[in-house]
Amino acid sequence: MVSVTIWNEHRHERERDDVAEVYPDGIHAVIAEFLDEEGHDVRTTTLDEGPEHGLTRDVINDTDVLLWWGHMAHDEVSDEVVDRVQEAILAGMGFVPLHSAHYSKPFKRLMGTSCSLKWREVGERERLWVVEPGHPVAKGLPESFELDREEMYGERFDIPQPDALVFSSWFEGGEVFRSGCAYRRGAGRIFYFRPGHETYPTYYDEMVQQVIKNAVEWAAPEGVVDETFGNVDPIEDI
Amino acid sequence: MVSVTIWNEHRHERERDDVAEVYPDGIHAVIAEFLDEEGHDVRTTTLDEGPEHGLTRDVINDTDVLLWWGHMAHDEVSDEVVDRVQEAILAGMGFVPLHSAHYSKPFKRLMGTSCSLKWREVGERERLWVVEPGHPVAKGLPESFELDREEMYGERFDIPQPDALVFSSWFEGGEVFRSGCAYRRGAGRIFYFRPGHETYPTYYDEMVQQVIKNAVEWAAPEGVVDETFGNVDPIEDI
Amino acid sequence: MVSVTIWNEHRHERERDDVAEVYPDGIHAVIAEFLDEEGHDVRTTTLDEGPEHGLTRDVINDTDVLLWWGHMAHDEVSDEVVDRVQEAILAGMGFVPLHSAHYSKPFKRLMGTSCSLKWREVGERERLWVVEPGHPVAKGLPESFELDREEMYGERFDIPQPDALVFSSWFEGGEVFRSGCAYRRGAGRIFYFRPGHETYPTYYDEMVQQVIKNAVEWAAPEGVVDETFGNVDPIEDI
Amino acid sequence: MVSVTIWNEHRHERERDDVAEVYPDGIHAVIAEFLDEEGHDVRTTTLDEGPEHGLTRDVINDTDVLLWWGHMAHDEVSDEVVDRVQEAILAGMGFVPLHSAHYSKPFKRLMGTSCSLKWREVGERERLWVVEPGHPVAKGLPESFELDREEMYGERFDIPQPDALVFSSWFEGGEVFRSGCAYRRGAGRIFYFRPGHETYPTYYDEMVQQVIKNAVEWAAPEGVVDETFGNVDPIEDI
Repeated sequence: MVSVTIWNEHRHERERDDVAEVYPDGIHAVIAEFLDEEGHDVRTTTLDEGPEHGLTRDVINDTDVLLWWGHMAHDEVSDEVVDRVQEAILAGMGFVPLHSAHYSKPFKRLMGTSCSLKWREVGERERLWVVEPGHPVAKGLPESFELDREEMYGERFDIPQPDALVFSSWFEGGEVFRSGCAYRRGAGRIFYFRPGHETYPTYYDEMVQQVIKNAVEWAAPEGVVDETFGNVDPIEDI
Repeated sequence: MVSVTIWNEHRHERERDDVAEVYPDGIHAVIAEFLDEEGHDVRTTTLDEGPEHGLTRDVINDTDVLLWWGHMAHDEVSDEVVDRVQEAILAGMGFVPLHSAHYSKPFKRLMGTSCSLKWREVGERERLWVVEPGHPVAKGLPESFELDREEMYGERFDIPQPDALVFSSWFEGGEVFRSGCAYRRGAGRIFYFRPGHETYPTYYDEMVQQVIKNAVEWAAPEGVVDETFGNVDPIEDI
Repeated sequence: MVSVTIWNEHRHERERDDVAEVYPDGIHAVIAEFLDEEGHDVRTTTLDEGPEHGLTRDVINDTDVLLWWGHMAHDEVSDEVVDRVQEAILAGMGFVPLHSAHYSKPFKRLMGTSCSLKWREVGERERLWVVEPGHPVAKGLPESFELDREEMYGERFDIPQPDALVFSSWFEGGEVFRSGCAYRRGAGRIFYFRPGHETYPTYYDEMVQQVIKNAVEWAAPEGVVDETFGNVDPIEDI
Repeated sequence: MVSVTIWNEHRHERERDDVAEVYPDGIHAVIAEFLDEEGHDVRTTTLDEGPEHGLTRDVINDTDVLLWWGHMAHDEVSDEVVDRVQEAILAGMGFVPLHSAHYSKPFKRLMGTSCSLKWREVGERERLWVVEPGHPVAKGLPESFELDREEMYGERFDIPQPDALVFSSWFEGGEVFRSGCAYRRGAGRIFYFRPGHETYPTYYDEMVQQVIKNAVEWAAPEGVVDETFGNVDPIEDI
């Protein structure tokens, strides 16, 4: 059992009918449902739940893995909360930024790069290929799977080279994208997963759900070594 | 529960009194004991168990993680067995080469480099530092631990850069060494762990045992994706 | 000025009219021409130039960067020559395996994996995307370029994760491929570059030529540190 | 010829007699001298050269490689200047943070981690081992070299795993450290180099100078590919 917190911006779903139709209770509700079925301890929070967006110190302290979906309001996330999230990840909390969270404050903070990319919203076909068949996040998947209609993200994706590239995407319109990227930062594990535009039923897709379930299990911390920093005495005679 | 096979050359222990005193039933017996206590399904085999050294097709097929200790008789391992071990690892079997197995046929085959290093056998102090505190193989360890008397291995260690460097060693005589190296090769995971000279009681050390237990759990395959190779038809219209 | 040796199997060109039409003097001749124009010291050798395939000890000793094209006769390359090539690369010689050389003995030896992949020969469009715009092998390229007709290679490509992934390919038929892969092995640098099927005029393409020129410059050794291996005395008092 | 800017905090040298004795004109002056002798176009700037610390837009635009030494006044560096430096690096400018610049704003920004470490100031011996003998930054070095008196930095060093680990340090007091770390971030190359405490004559050391010269050459941009980001039209028919 993993203590999971799903953070969702939850604006598109409340402001646009076409999005509300796909995700009437918000993207977080759909993700929460299939993670809950896995037996995890699942909590959801959203941007507008107070000045800390539901990510209070207590919530973060009680979180093993944090999922993040944001898009139109990245800037409204408080820097204090971003500091807290970054610190928690470096101390071992898992982090699973989804889709447009490539541009979220915490992900950009952890990557140190612009995290820019190409995009196009015409509802084209995406095919995700498994590049590392032995990686835990690929468990239970076929060697490729398709999403019939998705937003396109294309290279150059300005990120540090992932510690492991697990998925690579083909798009109908002619682009490719590193769509499943595993990182270790501090004592924490990060898995960026590309699909999930708000106007498509991506999070109802069984393969996508399998990836997110795997990512949660993989990113959960296990017995982080207690490290000390700062001034130390010699161990050996000098 | 992981199906573990511990392969040991088992020559030093039978040929030299000083080694027999430390490992009367062989290095493999000591390792088997603490892995057995973890609830794993543990089997041991040695070089002189027939032409296949106990690593028959059936044994390999039934192995999740293979540990390997060898030193004076690397060349006597049959190439056919090495082929079999390599194939199994690429298909997902875990592999944990120990100490002088840096020069074993399977490890060299998988690395593609000479795997050469510096060494010295004067029984000096080694201190292993945890470089990646969030890595599963470091679970339950302090930030550093010491082995009072060990053989020295020093850099340059001619290996491909590890996917994760988990331990780095300090030696009394002035050298450093990348002593815990994690790799993904094919669908398999490999963890090279440096300590373990045959004349010292290294495998009785609690920290060393913790690392090996962790490595076994980390290297065990979990749901490898079934990949196909060769000639394929187009998926999209051309 | 780099001392370049281009090794080509040179069988398809002599045995099949359609290939001879595209490369009447062999693939190596076309590559030699544009590398020669760069001011490099270029030599070509082929499989059938004697038992050492033109890769004598003298030739290898005098080579900074070795290019390799092979396909139908990988097995005819002598293991002794492969040993020599591997040793030279580990000692610092650059290595640029092209296209079907993914299955050549030296590349497989250096990777330690099967180097298997998917393939299809229908002459479809390939688009190569630059994934690392600051990498020396991408110098002077646009952000993507197309080859109108090429053989397809698709993932899963069973290789160790590259130290740098420079190009990623999109194929008309629906696949993706890591088509420009940089590795450091021993003191040597390796750049695998995917395009170059024998029935297409790929090596006449200006972009492809630019990549190969860049790869040669990048892979050329510069002042390799002299490392020693084996038994050493302590540096510090023990 | 590389356009080099050496940025130095230049406070210790003006405030403390023991430091002024070693670096009467500042650390930057010593570094400038040996880089100038290489034929580079060298400029120095310091923290107190106005609100932009000498790192105006014009200076940054005219810089191929930026060296950085800072320690006691990291916080006084303006965030606007840090933004500018980060952007320039992502666009291809080289960056060589030295010693206590591990804690500088630009380095922390680019790494995304805390960059914390252990330290001790007793003037002990450090021995740097070359871990990657074929890396350009190791050119011309012996396999190890010593600094008789240096500040100690010890692991855990909280950084992302380097793209290439070039040097690893042994310290008299019992610690190890990843002391030469190469990264690619955006289109830029970064080389962190550990030695250089202000009270020791480290930057007069010939080996240290060789490393810094090499790092400057390696980090200089060469023909960065022009990448576009944002909304794009399909290339292929959808």
